[in-house]
Amino acid sequence: MDVRSDSDSMTVPNPPYYAVLFTAKRRRRDGDGYDAMDTALFAKVGHQQGYLGHECFSRADGTSLTISYWQSLEDITAWRDNALHQEARRRGREAWYEEFTVQITRVERVSRFHRT
Amino acid sequence: MDVRSDSDSMTVPNPPYYAVLFTAKRRRRDGDGYDAMDTALFAKVGHQQGYLGHECFSRADGTSLTISYWQSLEDITAWRDNALHQEARRRGREAWYEEFTVQITRVERVSRFHRT
Repeated sequence: MDVRSDSDSMTVPNPPYYAVLFTAKRRRRDGDGYDAMDTALFAKVGHQQGYLGHECFSRADGTSLTISYWQSLEDITAWRDNALHQEARRRGREAWYEEFTVQITRVERVSRFHRT
Repeated sequence: MDVRSDSDSMTVPNPPYYAVLFTAKRRRRDGDGYDAMDTALFAKVGHQQGYLGHECFSRADGTSLTISYWQSLEDITAWRDNALHQEARRRGREAWYEEFTVQITRVERVSRFHRT
């Protein structure tokens, strides 16, 4: 799976699994090293233990939402403590984001519909 | 709070609370009664027990994501069984959606950052 694709259907296991909702509003858009870090992070996270995939959304006011899916809370913690991710989190607070919210959720139930 | 606003910051309680992630791809866009139902549903859900708010996102391929926030699983079930919502779910399967996914999640942890 190309983890950078925003339109892939997620193939996730049966619940329970975990979803991290990262809602963020950028401070500025260009020349601040954000895009390079974004690319590096997505290349890295694909190799993380327990990583199941992600989806990216946005809304008109410029807020972005990235949902990453994980097998366990321990996998989420390990990614939080990854050195590159730690650097990204530091620079995010220092420079990139006006505001953000991280919601760590446990997916309890899933239902799907696909027209046949 | 204007529950139709997509850009309001969510004011949610401390976890645990619940988030319903409704990811959907529409089949067609106009003249099928969808917009009227959408308006009616958002007017209705604001009065539901345990409803905490919602956020709407989209992505370039036309997929939308609506996250609704709730105090409990029982509140989510009560909204699922609401008559208007039942009608919307029926018509969604019959006509409006090419595909959709509903993920019911329990929010375990939240962290926020806001530049001061």
